[in-house]
Amino acid sequence: MSPRPNPALPLATPAGVEVLTRILTQGPIPRVEIARRAGLSQAAVTKAVAPLIEAGFVTDQPVTARSGEVVEAQLGIGRPVSPLTVIRNSVSVIGLKVTPTALIGVTTDFSAGIITARQQPLPDHSVETVLQRLTDLASELIGTLGDDSGPLIGIGVAVSGDVDAEHGVVRDSPFMGWRDVGVGELLTEKLGVPVVVTNDVRALTVSEHWFGVGVNADSFAVVTIGSGVGCGLYINGEVVSGAHGVSGELGHLPLAPGELVCTCGRRGCVETVASSDAILNRTRETTGRPDLDLSGAIELAHGGDENAREAFDRAGEVIGSALAAMVNLVGPELVVIAGEGVADYDLYEQRMREAFAAHAFGAAGDCRLMLRSHTFNDWARGAAATVIRSYVRGEQPFQR
Amino acid sequence: MSPRPNPALPLATPAGVEVLTRILTQGPIPRVEIARRAGLSQAAVTKAVAPLIEAGFVTDQPVTARSGEVVEAQLGIGRPVSPLTVIRNSVSVIGLKVTPTALIGVTTDFSAGIITARQQPLPDHSVETVLQRLTDLASELIGTLGDDSGPLIGIGVAVSGDVDAEHGVVRDSPFMGWRDVGVGELLTEKLGVPVVVTNDVRALTVSEHWFGVGVNADSFAVVTIGSGVGCGLYINGEVVSGAHGVSGELGHLPLAPGELVCTCGRRGCVETVASSDAILNRTRETTGRPDLDLSGAIELAHGGDENAREAFDRAGEVIGSALAAMVNLVGPELVVIAGEGVADYDLYEQRMREAFAAHAFGAAGDCRLMLRSHTFNDWARGAAATVIRSYVRGEQPFQR
Ligand SMILES: [Zn+2]
Ligand SMILES: [Zn+2]
Repeated sequence: MSPRPNPALPLATPAGVEVLTRILTQGPIPRVEIARRAGLSQAAVTKAVAPLIEAGFVTDQPVTARSGEVVEAQLGIGRPVSPLTVIRNSVSVIGLKVTPTALIGVTTDFSAGIITARQQPLPDHSVETVLQRLTDLASELIGTLGDDSGPLIGIGVAVSGDVDAEHGVVRDSPFMGWRDVGVGELLTEKLGVPVVVTNDVRALTVSEHWFGVGVNADSFAVVTIGSGVGCGLYINGEVVSGAHGVSGELGHLPLAPGELVCTCGRRGCVETVASSDAILNRTRETTGRPDLDLSGAIELAHGGDENAREAFDRAGEVIGSALAAMVNLVGPELVVIAGEGVADYDLYEQRMREAFAAHAFGAAGDCRLMLRSHTFNDWARGAAATVIRSYVRGEQPFQR
Repeated sequence: MSPRPNPALPLATPAGVEVLTRILTQGPIPRVEIARRAGLSQAAVTKAVAPLIEAGFVTDQPVTARSGEVVEAQLGIGRPVSPLTVIRNSVSVIGLKVTPTALIGVTTDFSAGIITARQQPLPDHSVETVLQRLTDLASELIGTLGDDSGPLIGIGVAVSGDVDAEHGVVRDSPFMGWRDVGVGELLTEKLGVPVVVTNDVRALTVSEHWFGVGVNADSFAVVTIGSGVGCGLYINGEVVSGAHGVSGELGHLPLAPGELVCTCGRRGCVETVASSDAILNRTRETTGRPDLDLSGAIELAHGGDENAREAFDRAGEVIGSALAAMVNLVGPELVVIAGEGVADYDLYEQRMREAFAAHAFGAAGDCRLMLRSHTFNDWARGAAATVIRSYVRGEQPFQR
């Protein structure tokens, strides 16, 4: 099916946006509960909901969940209340995650539920190659949208580094070796669909905020550990985006020895000892085995090799200090530790926890630490969640 | 005059709180402008304003500013619009700042404008002594309230360290050597007036947010340099308070050499090289003059003494790294550098800026750095501003 892009949402007021956001992120939810949580009158909620039902985005009829279970709330005996739910297949979304070696893409429904997932290896990560493969992958995913899929509202692209989301420009991505690449404009041109470009960790934070652990937390941080070390923050009711588009750069806090030079060009960044590459390089050095790959290094460490373990210890120590620095500054309720490095968490957990305990200031250390194993698909889903949020809020490129 | 405590504010709805907040922090302001900025209907604004005018907290009559100038806005020729202003002397507030060697107290009006300021030296900083002197100072300040002062709504107390503002308890103040001191309850008992206890840097941030540079900034940080190094953050429309009451502990990021032990007991905190005491101790060590005091050390450094300069350089370097760590994480639009250490800013500015530039990540380094010379009275004013905010919002101890 061809994309029917960007169907207009009937949301004329801030109250309408608030109401749809609650249905989307907290539904199924009765009108009275939306009114209570949003501090709106029931009349205002009813007024905002009517056009959403009319246009087919929301329903107050019992819906069948994927499990086949009928979702319905009861208030007292025999008085069924029809809670509001979004019609998941009223829209479709595509999320793409860019890494230097592969592209990962998903299609999702309105609730960021993944429908299809695809991968595409990259022969190189030049701007031309990546943009061509992104176009191919997006086209392939568009081709999977069937008759029961809603119209495609937009495509999200998640890239690591400094991203100017407002203008769709990747300003500086050390991993990709990109500077000032106008991904948004180039892809919109090729695909004819609204494109949202976002920092990958920010995207994961948005998806945890609307569709994950963040729904019930007053504040949280998502810390990703793997080829890089990143951090997304949710504070005071919103994801922190930074006045100039940069925030959560936990991997570039100057907490490592000053003689080590980071991929970003700065000295002493956390990533100089805590990224997968840093751990691998250190293990190669200390074991005198330049042939080792990351899984070899992990295997050695698991086998108790002291030299290999030291590289993970060093990473754990600086990650723990970085976590402490972050909680000392912003004091989140919950810290979610995620990323591909989580698979080998046992190798650095103890030192990380020790360093965290040694440097967390007072009650800031009382935050919950939660481990969450993200797959690459989750990164792509984050890009889709960012599209959904911009679409509901009427932000770029969905201005109403 | 005796205190007439806690006159009730006629604010029944969240819209009412929003309206009064805008008049207080952005007034004189026309009704139509409040409606526009708050996203409220003009009818809602008018409805919220009427009881505030009725009760004598707000006026739409031209008011005479302290300068004698009549404040009035014009919209077009000959059509004067009566903007809304708070009646500054409709309430009085007392703010107290606790330091280990002295207490500073001010009385302010509803707009946190200082009316009277007093100091009280402390013979020691035991809990008993400080609470007795706080009571004396507060009584003295209450005595200064004249017939043209509004009723006293409450007393704010600002203390450095980990403060549980909800329960009025100083949980851990290394400078004072206090742990779990229930300042709020003890003072309320003695004075019979609502007492708000707050972290001192948080208080300064609240006062910048409502009555200072923060009124026009989307996000900002207040970094205080002096006997300690602190940081208050304003992000996503609110001061960051930390899920467990701790945030902005810039002085305890582990950015200094690990062999140095901080007053808080941890290793490698920023304050181990950047606090006034750390700078003094270092200068005594390198110059071999254990008799030096801080002004002596500053004099030496200004005179070009290499050993004294090194202590300031070292402080500047770690302060610059700490600023970079903070902007890399939260990306504020504006960083206000304040505190008593600002008086000797020239001694560490260059190294601070170099370290900041070396570690600020991408566009995060584009934040404006602003120097602001705070007096001790400003800290006490911050405590008063915190009282005013709690009072308007109906928070502890002003629940409506
Ligand atoms: Zn770096
Ligand atoms: Zn410390």
